[in-house]
Amino acid sequence: MTQIPIFSAEQIDYFMQVALNEAQLADEAGEVPIGAVIVKDNEIIARAHNHREAHQLATAHAELVAIESANHILNSWRLENTALFVTLEPCIMCAGAIINARIPTVYFGAADSKGGGTRSLYHLLEDDRLNHRVEVHPDIRASEGGRLLQDFFGKIRKKRQSKK
Amino acid sequence: MTQIPIFSAEQIDYFMQVALNEAQLADEAGEVPIGAVIVKDNEIIARAHNHREAHQLATAHAELVAIESANHILNSWRLENTALFVTLEPCIMCAGAIINARIPTVYFGAADSKGGGTRSLYHLLEDDRLNHRVEVHPDIRASEGGRLLQDFFGKIRKKRQSKK
Repeated sequence: MTQIPIFSAEQIDYFMQVALNEAQLADEAGEVPIGAVIVKDNEIIARAHNHREAHQLATAHAELVAIESANHILNSWRLENTALFVTLEPCIMCAGAIINARIPTVYFGAADSKGGGTRSLYHLLEDDRLNHRVEVHPDIRASEGGRLLQDFFGKIRKKRQSKK
Repeated sequence: MTQIPIFSAEQIDYFMQVALNEAQLADEAGEVPIGAVIVKDNEIIARAHNHREAHQLATAHAELVAIESANHILNSWRLENTALFVTLEPCIMCAGAIINARIPTVYFGAADSKGGGTRSLYHLLEDDRLNHRVEVHPDIRASEGGRLLQDFFGKIRKKRQSKK
């Protein structure tokens, strides 16, 4: 039977810090700064950041890359007994990937009012009609994840204005 | 500006036939038989089938694999002016990937009453709140796409019963 991992406040803080570090790496590479980690048996088994621009891949969101990495490491499409930490609310695609991978619990940072599929626009992870449901923990170090994004888009706006 | 490709009935029939051929390849490999193709300028630029089991990848649905293949071929995460044909209604993940890749139009075969994110459970591709909307054409050679799936799951049930 699938078990839902339980963490202390310190562990949650630490795993989200690693996800924030991944988001920072995305930022430094000129990518929208979002990071994710997947944890099993209290250890990080996959970490990733968004690299849509570098690889020109529509699917290269932090969560999807981390899920595929964890699939490879465990040699299993089923990610039972794992937890996913991500600095921004998962979009529709990533929420669907979390369901497809049977991840039992998700911790996310900032809300995404324009595209969030996990709480903002839809509650896709908590739909009783689907064959898998996910425990959702929103608002974990949300201000830090959100600030990275605000600063990133602020820099882009400045660049655009200076070109005018 | 993004243009939505327009096809004749013969073209739609042909492109879905190629997707059905892909589904058949999945079936022969012991995978849930679902196939997809992506078309640009009236030519197929990517074709794929589900290979979740062979690669142990939760994300290896036909649509997602086809999208990533098209991203590589065009060296662009944006799949503007393309069309996606798939033998089964896209799930939540694949609907999200279609949105993220900015595909303007989708033709699908059989409905998926248990997991379909495109018409059955959600209308994710037609949500005015999102930054991209998709023209949806359901029920294209649906009985053929559906029969492949029925036969596949019928064979699995028979195998299970013979083991009892």
